[in-house]
Amino acid sequence: MHRLVLVRHGESEWNKSNLFTGWTDVDLSSKGVDEAKEAGKLLKEHKFDFDIAYTSYLRRAIKTLYFIQDEMNLLWIPTYKTWQLNERHYGALQGLSKLTTAQKYGEQQVQLWRRSYDVLPPALTKDDERYPRNDPKYKDVPDQFIPVTESLKETIVRVEDYWLREIKPQILAGKRVIIAAHGNSLRALVKYLDNLSATEIMQVNIPTGTPLVYSLDEQLLPVEKYYLGSDTRIEHKIEKAADPDRVME
Amino acid sequence: MHRLVLVRHGESEWNKSNLFTGWTDVDLSSKGVDEAKEAGKLLKEHKFDFDIAYTSYLRRAIKTLYFIQDEMNLLWIPTYKTWQLNERHYGALQGLSKLTTAQKYGEQQVQLWRRSYDVLPPALTKDDERYPRNDPKYKDVPDQFIPVTESLKETIVRVEDYWLREIKPQILAGKRVIIAAHGNSLRALVKYLDNLSATEIMQVNIPTGTPLVYSLDEQLLPVEKYYLGSDTRIEHKIEKAADPDRVME
Repeated sequence: MHRLVLVRHGESEWNKSNLFTGWTDVDLSSKGVDEAKEAGKLLKEHKFDFDIAYTSYLRRAIKTLYFIQDEMNLLWIPTYKTWQLNERHYGALQGLSKLTTAQKYGEQQVQLWRRSYDVLPPALTKDDERYPRNDPKYKDVPDQFIPVTESLKETIVRVEDYWLREIKPQILAGKRVIIAAHGNSLRALVKYLDNLSATEIMQVNIPTGTPLVYSLDEQLLPVEKYYLGSDTRIEHKIEKAADPDRVME
Repeated sequence: MHRLVLVRHGESEWNKSNLFTGWTDVDLSSKGVDEAKEAGKLLKEHKFDFDIAYTSYLRRAIKTLYFIQDEMNLLWIPTYKTWQLNERHYGALQGLSKLTTAQKYGEQQVQLWRRSYDVLPPALTKDDERYPRNDPKYKDVPDQFIPVTESLKETIVRVEDYWLREIKPQILAGKRVIIAAHGNSLRALVKYLDNLSATEIMQVNIPTGTPLVYSLDEQLLPVEKYYLGSDTRIEHKIEKAADPDRVME
């Protein structure tokens, strides 16, 4: 039996102001820091322990993991960072407010981009300063993998590739793994693990800063799945993550 | 030409209370956090950039590196942690105050343990809770490498081994490296890079939280070496690190 823990980063500065974030490297808000510390305390209290940690190239996820590890006295464990666990790339919507976007494209179109599985938001042009090739973080990522926009479908392809190549073999080798990432990169993992359809995964809203625990059998099929924490707190957080008026990605 | 930066962790909780620390995993003091952030700001201001980071298994070094990376927007770079960069293991002196130790063993003996190259402090017994085998951090370290006490000589052996196997090849491959570690594990690197004798390295006192910059030629021989920061601040910090009445290890 294997145990895997997924944690979505806490509130970021842009969640607070309701902007599309995507690959924009915004910081955690002070509430987001508290959420991360709280997740670490919960995991420690429930005697969780980890051998390896994974996170994205984005500081809101890296810091969430750091605060969890600090609370658990696990700063020393190997910690791998990868662009493949980044949030869904929101194309030319990145940095726009939900309000501005709705005014420009219509509320219905915005909901389509946010709630459909494979509809791409407007792409970035390659001279846009937001194009990832212009950020030194991505200098070693081959051109064909640098996104100009993504739907959940494209996000899933890169997350699954990393899961199969890097994370799955470690779990099968008996390592206890924690992954701190983003609403949509974690959706990709949940879709894979729970074998959900495109329609089903769009209904899944992962709350921030709340450890999602999977017990997996020898084939890594889920035997049990639960959020760690008090039921009312978790319900409140899931509702917030599902709120159509609130951008959290 | 290669550039390498070494940083000794900022003040820890035990530096403050003048206790022998060694492998005890004490936290940074709030002053130590500030020193780390200051080092990060200095490196950023002087346009330093890094591809890979190394640190020890001890949180005072890991956190120093974290705060530097955060200031430099480099949290995303690969960061390797190893027991081989840990502080010198101080054996049965760990956790004792300098005053207690001097009363018990005499001031002269204490200075001998602290200032000689190869005199071992009293060893830990294997049933001591301070014996590293009892800490899950070191579960994968083979028995013959788990110390019960170290002089600088033993510390140097394990640091040089890691340098030659892991760090040196990365620098030769063109990677820009930063290492956040401890007074004695950094002495080991300085002895190696500057080709110092056992007597010479004992005179070297590395100030806390102050980036030590090496420019190295193609054979990794030092061409230039300097501390980053204002001269008066650095002199003050070196004096403090050399103070025989103050334990900083």
